Amino acid sequence: MEIPKGYKFAALSAGFRYKNRNDLAVLLSDQPAMAAGVFTTNRFQAAPVLVAQEIIAKEKLVRAVLINAGQANACTGDTGVANCRISLRLVAKELDLRAADILPASTGVIGDQLNMDAWQKVAPLVPEALKTGSPMDAAKAIMTTDAFPKLAWRMAKVKGVEVRVLGMAKGAGMICPNMATMLSFVVTDAAVDPAWWRDTIKAVADKTFNAITVDGDTSTNDCLIGLANGAAGIKAEGKAGREIARMVEEVCADLSYMIVQDAEGGTKVVRIKVVKAKTKADAEAVARTIGHSQLVKTAMFGQDPNWGRIVAAVGRSGASFDPNKVEVKLAGLTIFTEGRPVKMDRDAVFAPYLRRKEIEVEVNLSAGRVGYELLTSDLTLDYVRINAEYRT
Amino acid sequence: MEIPKGYKFAALSAGFRYKNRNDLAVLLSDQPAMAAGVFTTNRFQAAPVLVAQEIIAKEKLVRAVLINAGQANACTGDTGVANCRISLRLVAKELDLRAADILPASTGVIGDQLNMDAWQKVAPLVPEALKTGSPMDAAKAIMTTDAFPKLAWRMAKVKGVEVRVLGMAKGAGMICPNMATMLSFVVTDAAVDPAWWRDTIKAVADKTFNAITVDGDTSTNDCLIGLANGAAGIKAEGKAGREIARMVEEVCADLSYMIVQDAEGGTKVVRIKVVKAKTKADAEAVARTIGHSQLVKTAMFGQDPNWGRIVAAVGRSGASFDPNKVEVKLAGLTIFTEGRPVKMDRDAVFAPYLRRKEIEVEVNLSAGRVGYELLTSDLTLDYVRINAEYRT
Repeated sequence: MEIPKGYKFAALSAGFRYKNRNDLAVLLSDQPAMAAGVFTTNRFQAAPVLVAQEIIAKEKLVRAVLINAGQANACTGDTGVANCRISLRLVAKELDLRAADILPASTGVIGDQLNMDAWQKVAPLVPEALKTGSPMDAAKAIMTTDAFPKLAWRMAKVKGVEVRVLGMAKGAGMICPNMATMLSFVVTDAAVDPAWWRDTIKAVADKTFNAITVDGDTSTNDCLIGLANGAAGIKAEGKAGREIARMVEEVCADLSYMIVQDAEGGTKVVRIKVVKAKTKADAEAVARTIGHSQLVKTAMFGQDPNWGRIVAAVGRSGASFDPNKVEVKLAGLTIFTEGRPVKMDRDAVFAPYLRRKEIEVEVNLSAGRVGYELLTSDLTLDYVRINAEYRT
Repeated sequence: MEIPKGYKFAALSAGFRYKNRNDLAVLLSDQPAMAAGVFTTNRFQAAPVLVAQEIIAKEKLVRAVLINAGQANACTGDTGVANCRISLRLVAKELDLRAADILPASTGVIGDQLNMDAWQKVAPLVPEALKTGSPMDAAKAIMTTDAFPKLAWRMAKVKGVEVRVLGMAKGAGMICPNMATMLSFVVTDAAVDPAWWRDTIKAVADKTFNAITVDGDTSTNDCLIGLANGAAGIKAEGKAGREIARMVEEVCADLSYMIVQDAEGGTKVVRIKVVKAKTKADAEAVARTIGHSQLVKTAMFGQDPNWGRIVAAVGRSGASFDPNKVEVKLAGLTIFTEGRPVKMDRDAVFAPYLRRKEIEVEVNLSAGRVGYELLTSDLTLDYVRINAEYRT
């Protein structure tokens, strides 16, 4: 594992909701790190989302990120915001920091107030835990019903110097009351300008985390937070900047893929590629209409080469195109062209392809030059079981 | 059953796809009837949708509707349109009509060409079948995987004269390759002006069929066709017009409800009521975001009073409102208010309500004066089974 210079990690068991496992993670930078973040667009933003946005807007440089699992601190009103600030102060005191040096993030049950007794008890243990914690420990501590921890990293020599990027995420595992909460954090030892870092994090989020969907439900707690502390001694600008941005994107793309892999009940990762659209909005609309179609997603689960459901989704997407010029490829093979299905023994031809874990759907609109790519999961019996039987 | 004056019905077994059941329905008006229609917005419109729109635009008055089940005649190119016209000619000849006097509609497998041998054989049998057929026979003949036929009617004395409205529909039963095809037909013996009838059919469709969703998938064949033959001797205008429009709407509302009742795998009808939105578009966006949320729909199946999923859907709908002023009622009881869940033993309180077949979700946005109502079904294990295991 390539750990960026000047970062420490901690994982602790606070007992917020879970017993016998870690549920608090701390990411600490030895020196002030440039912070950038992308946050949920849900109008019901959780308390930590409100506070983290406020701190990033005011402070630019921060020292740590504090993440708890089990309690989302969403729909908790002013008390929730006050509790969030108290949790920051408790930990800041132990680390000799100001509360405004720490960004909060939470995942878990919405509607409940934070367990402040647990915060009181765990805060004094943070300094010791930072001495021994690893990124993998932290990635495990932020899991809720994730099946596996999600960690990715890159290293490249930039101007002869090693620069590292490391990221972690928790996925769309469902917990009571079953919000898909996506949290992700990426840290680098590159030095960055605030505007460059903000733009890079935003652009990367659009290409990676914002281009996946499990069930179309945007949670109240989603965030991507990036820290860059400059410990590698290399500034992200010009060619070096492009190289570092590429690493950040690759790390986030790996984490995004893992989130889709770990979708509740999912058995497939479906890569939807729309090409030759007239506008980016058209390309995205077609990809999202297919990616949210229950009929397409159940067909993927059923390993059914069901071009009809894909074509119907394309048709209702609102994108502009000539129906007689649309081509659909499934797993790389043309299944629909010039307004009609290709004649073949579909079940026999596609059976081996559709058994794979990753399936590609490509739609060529023949209407322009723009494309969009979206990752999604299939819709399975286990998805319904998990989400119908799990109680609030 | 109240059958509007001057209409005959036929149901025949043509063997288009099914054996041992009727799969062709004919609705015939003794005199020319004003036609109006609302058709799918899917860009891949089926051949009968193209032809029916063309005829309505040119002819205004028609004599019959010809509906086959088993073959959707969608994604069939120019051959599909030519075959559709041939089927009209074959039946027109037997009834002493022009092909342009008959509106076509099809439901079934998409991608296959019509079975023209079957059309040749069945056409001569139509006149005899019209002597004995009933609306219920016709409603049964247009079923695909519907669990029950869908028929509704109203009668009212308008200016002392009995005026009747009768409608039939086939629902979102899934057939290979699993398109949700919604067909609906409403006939009345009122006399109408073309503009009034067109506006009424459009307005009724928006309030009824366009306000239901099973899986968000708009098919290539959806249509609502209305015929008004004037046989009752009453003109739909002024107060009489409002009375007749009300009957048409009630008939279509009944049919819409039946379609949601008969959703694949569905166990509940969920009525989503959004009130006090700033704009109609906001109200509809909130209702549709809830109605399409897989998480809300699985919670309904699981009889789980999961306010968190509803609130998260409201939050990501894009509507404008103050999160602290939103109120959510489930089955008539307030579960979320002023940005927070109401404290109570939710499972115990809601258990009896959520066992019901119809559940109401009401969202008060406190942002204006506009509302919208949407009907949807739940997302169940059987839904996934039906749609994953059914093969193209």
